[in-house]
Amino acid sequence: MKLDVFSTATAVQEDDVRHKTVVVIDVLRATTSMITALKNGAKAILPVGDMEEAGNLAMRLDPSQYLLCGEKDGRKIDGYHLGNSPLEYTPKVVKDKSLIFNTTNGTRAISRSATAKKLYIAAFLNASAISARLREEQDEILLVCAGWKNRLSLEDMLCAGMLVYQLCNGNLPDDARDGSKIAFALYEKYRHDITGVIKNTNHAARLREFIDETELEYCSRIDTIPVVPVFEDGMITLQ
Amino acid sequence: MKLDVFSTATAVQEDDVRHKTVVVIDVLRATTSMITALKNGAKAILPVGDMEEAGNLAMRLDPSQYLLCGEKDGRKIDGYHLGNSPLEYTPKVVKDKSLIFNTTNGTRAISRSATAKKLYIAAFLNASAISARLREEQDEILLVCAGWKNRLSLEDMLCAGMLVYQLCNGNLPDDARDGSKIAFALYEKYRHDITGVIKNTNHAARLREFIDETELEYCSRIDTIPVVPVFEDGMITLQ
Repeated sequence: MKLDVFSTATAVQEDDVRHKTVVVIDVLRATTSMITALKNGAKAILPVGDMEEAGNLAMRLDPSQYLLCGEKDGRKIDGYHLGNSPLEYTPKVVKDKSLIFNTTNGTRAISRSATAKKLYIAAFLNASAISARLREEQDEILLVCAGWKNRLSLEDMLCAGMLVYQLCNGNLPDDARDGSKIAFALYEKYRHDITGVIKNTNHAARLREFIDETELEYCSRIDTIPVVPVFEDGMITLQ
Repeated sequence: MKLDVFSTATAVQEDDVRHKTVVVIDVLRATTSMITALKNGAKAILPVGDMEEAGNLAMRLDPSQYLLCGEKDGRKIDGYHLGNSPLEYTPKVVKDKSLIFNTTNGTRAISRSATAKKLYIAAFLNASAISARLREEQDEILLVCAGWKNRLSLEDMLCAGMLVYQLCNGNLPDDARDGSKIAFALYEKYRHDITGVIKNTNHAARLREFIDETELEYCSRIDTIPVVPVFEDGMITLQ
């Protein structure tokens, strides 16, 4: 199996992902929120690259059918229905709605990966479901960590490392790619304390001003929502 | 000690490094070659960002005093005196010369870090000499891995991990930065086989077309050249 890890969305070029199978990971919090929303009955998630695209898309939809969701620098955007906390995406709020989703790093990672042959959405919540699906793949697999601006985020690399670890059954071959080795080493070191290490990440420190421990713990839960969200034709649905 | 690791040169913004102590690492091969050249008697290294800057600088110098050095995509640039192999930088060739140095990733990492308060040049060859110097620093320390284009390079992260490991005496605090944790985990896993792992990196695979095992082994030697190259006023010298 050909497998590689990109440590940030900005490291990805269109040619890198074309015709490949791509998995986008943004643990804190975009992909965690998307997985939660879909499990709680959202009809589809429509990721957009910026506020303008979000607005244009909203204008074309029946206002009773969609919610504007997302964050800028971690905070809910003025005028949006929901922010980027997975805890907001309850069944009562999201059932049968289309969610227009606009976040700093996560949706950028998706839009930069849009030329992929297949594109999956992952976080700790659905890690084993994703790796089970990936085992069936014949194509090269690229795990794309959203990161934060141009920099890597430990929680995304750790989740990528969990997928790498599962896919190679804990035995990474010597000729694995640089990104896979780095993610694997990180997961191997911290796998017995995922929650603890996520609470100490740079991004948790940035978010702590306005989110609490419950939310960080929620984002670090493993395999609690075993679904496989797929991006196709501009929207993410469960498949 | 405040310590962080940037996984690529492109992750660095001017504001990140301003007034900080920065260490630039490009194991394969820019910083390894610079360290070798300085130890072998080169008077100074003048890193430049591109061929135009190299040409402009050369025009202002006495031709007997300088050598044009560097690579594009791993290969010597047409018309240059030397490429980017450390094995070329022998005492006979470089003694008392100023070396105008132009490489794909390494010199870019230096130019992006030029607003630093202090800027050191590191590789495995001088790792312990650099970490000894860093122990005396009061400022925040940033280890900047050159990487390859927008992507991380395992060998640079591994060398950064060695410096992190030495600076925290093998005990990384829980509140260490994401980059430090990732580099540390990588070094902890691979520290007993630095040469083996470097031979299996993505960049070694790219270079193997035109460099041999001897050169990769040379680049992975630890503490064989215990010098401290410093970038100041546009040039790198030993201090």
